[in-house]
Amino acid sequence: MVSHTSYIRVRYAETDAMQVAHHATYPIWFEVGRGELMHELGLPYTEIEAQGFYLMLVNLEVKYRSSARYDDLLRLETRVGELKTRSMSFEYTLHSGDTLVATGTTWHVATDKQYRPRTLPEEVIARLRSE
Amino acid sequence: MVSHTSYIRVRYAETDAMQVAHHATYPIWFEVGRGELMHELGLPYTEIEAQGFYLMLVNLEVKYRSSARYDDLLRLETRVGELKTRSMSFEYTLHSGDTLVATGTTWHVATDKQYRPRTLPEEVIARLRSE
Amino acid sequence: MVSHTSYIRVRYAETDAMQVAHHATYPIWFEVGRGELMHELGLPYTEIEAQGFYLMLVNLEVKYRSSARYDDLLRLETRVGELKTRSMSFEYTLHSGDTLVATGTTWHVATDKQYRPRTLPEEVIARLRSE
Amino acid sequence: MVSHTSYIRVRYAETDAMQVAHHATYPIWFEVGRGELMHELGLPYTEIEAQGFYLMLVNLEVKYRSSARYDDLLRLETRVGELKTRSMSFEYTLHSGDTLVATGTTWHVATDKQYRPRTLPEEVIARLRSE
Repeated sequence: MVSHTSYIRVRYAETDAMQVAHHATYPIWFEVGRGELMHELGLPYTEIEAQGFYLMLVNLEVKYRSSARYDDLLRLETRVGELKTRSMSFEYTLHSGDTLVATGTTWHVATDKQYRPRTLPEEVIARLRSE
Repeated sequence: MVSHTSYIRVRYAETDAMQVAHHATYPIWFEVGRGELMHELGLPYTEIEAQGFYLMLVNLEVKYRSSARYDDLLRLETRVGELKTRSMSFEYTLHSGDTLVATGTTWHVATDKQYRPRTLPEEVIARLRSE
Repeated sequence: MVSHTSYIRVRYAETDAMQVAHHATYPIWFEVGRGELMHELGLPYTEIEAQGFYLMLVNLEVKYRSSARYDDLLRLETRVGELKTRSMSFEYTLHSGDTLVATGTTWHVATDKQYRPRTLPEEVIARLRSE
Repeated sequence: MVSHTSYIRVRYAETDAMQVAHHATYPIWFEVGRGELMHELGLPYTEIEAQGFYLMLVNLEVKYRSSARYDDLLRLETRVGELKTRSMSFEYTLHSGDTLVATGTTWHVATDKQYRPRTLPEEVIARLRSE
């Protein structure tokens, strides 16, 4: 399945009083990784929305393994996980240098703009399945 | 002019590695105060948007006077400042107990949903001017 | 086990271009619920930190069931889940009126301020177990 | 005075229900620009904190000129503005392509970790003044 590597520098605003990146920032980084992966596939998310689709996030799991600090340069690998005609998952691995910071998974359902389930276009599925 | 007092408890996610509330959180709190003021006037922002208007924020100023910490209960006073047919300002004063935490001002322009300037309905102006 | 009900109004800043609350906001709301539950138990998180402990979040799961929109008043129920001497979980149920918006679970490990695992004080465990 | 150009891609989480980047995100981007400028000067903010200083933000102004949307690649120019022994300002200009999105200024006071005003080390001032 397709994968993509993103580089993310921890922002000061993303830290909290424990002096590490706040846990709610991780799903935002995962979304950045997902967006870059879609770009690389020639399927920018703006394009998917322009075609009348949302990829609604329905499920999120994060395992936090080590802290990330201000100014750390993180390496995020995003992979397509399961892929069905109306749903899919993405898997994330986040490192700081050699240290595993977190892993995560998001599950998504394809919907129209009224949030009704829809089948993803053939072409979108083909690209997500490529390589 | 109209004013409203809101109470806001500092969230852990709003703190940063200096162990105080991050400065970018203040405009979010001001927006909460503005929203509650509009509610009190019987002009919830959802209603203004439903009538086809945005109150686009065009200018923001914040003076930070003292830090706010996790779990502090802040008292935010929001007042209507200048009021014209197509623009307006709100003024904010934020306290923690007797300590002044910050003051701020936001300026807004009324637009339609294509972001073109519009005149606010008479009734909206009348309510903002009330008392 | 102990539980607590919080009320949270969706902020404009928490919405995204899909016009619903962004999914990364939910763990922030869960943290608010957790903080209020700890307050109610007489164990405010500031007190736990003052005693030299962190409750490091190590695992997060969220199931999104329905969208939340700007200005919705959400009802969040937070419960203590599993409780061990060095770790614990909290469970969350989020409603908007009668509609289930999301459920979630967070797992935490007690550490000292150098992030080394520690046993929670007897008294803290007793209070979390109460009722 | 010193300046630095940063490139920032608008995250989905940074948009709001108006389908543009939320105004409270701009100070976070400015902070990114400031951080990169300090890096370029060989004065990473982590180093300044390690030397026992904070650059407390005391004043913020933003003028919003045009909207930014999801996935836009923004160009942020950060410049040192005023520079005194205990305070300084940074100025920001944000573009999307040729369109001016916003300008802003932040003012900072040098403090120790108990938030008492301090004079910045000669070397720090020299570097900020360089070029």
